[in-house]
Amino acid sequence: MDTSAILAEISFDANGLVAAIAQQHDTGEVLMMAWMNAEAVSETLATGQVTYFSRSRQKLWRKGETSGQRQKLVALRIDCDGDTLLLQVHQDGVACHTGHRDCFFREVAGGGLTEIAPVLVDPKTLYG
Amino acid sequence: MDTSAILAEISFDANGLVAAIAQQHDTGEVLMMAWMNAEAVSETLATGQVTYFSRSRQKLWRKGETSGQRQKLVALRIDCDGDTLLLQVHQDGVACHTGHRDCFFREVAGGGLTEIAPVLVDPKTLYG
Repeated sequence: MDTSAILAEISFDANGLVAAIAQQHDTGEVLMMAWMNAEAVSETLATGQVTYFSRSRQKLWRKGETSGQRQKLVALRIDCDGDTLLLQVHQDGVACHTGHRDCFFREVAGGGLTEIAPVLVDPKTLYG
Repeated sequence: MDTSAILAEISFDANGLVAAIAQQHDTGEVLMMAWMNAEAVSETLATGQVTYFSRSRQKLWRKGETSGQRQKLVALRIDCDGDTLLLQVHQDGVACHTGHRDCFFREVAGGGLTEIAPVLVDPKTLYG
């Protein structure tokens, strides 16, 4: 796919990154939020496997490459001002490195935070 | 509500901001992504009406104050590393300034972008 027309619609920030929200396409669960550079967007569209850019490691992060918990791209949407992407995906297993299905497993309740979702996979087995 | 315990769990960035995804609580639609500072988080929790921080205007942005398209907070979740919030909300009317229900109305298709959702409200009536 020629991705230049799509990349031209994205407003990458001063670091060359755009925010990307991953949502399970059929259930609507918001799984995680991460960042992409132009190369990550292009690779994701070319392969159908979601690739982010890791800000901590400063390199492409092929989601699930180590853990096996891959994200398959179903659809890619761009917001009104082009600075956020919404990735409709199919998440294999768990999205979060903690072993939770998604990264938003803590909810404000009673003046503090409560865990509202279980650990489904022992994190040790994800990066063993 | 004493929000200090909650604010302590949030990793605000160098500009004092945290990314906030708004999702319609009952349908799962991802409506928009914007930013909050500590004051916006506190005000949102105190009032139950979602308040962001506008990066372009550099001030609190009480969602819907001008347009009437308010977001009522249903639940607030924090991600695993504390740098993204997921706001479960009830969106009155439309979330997007373009008059679309949500900001993600453009989808990659056929090597370009296609509008996948209608304009529901004339934007001129939102900010008239």
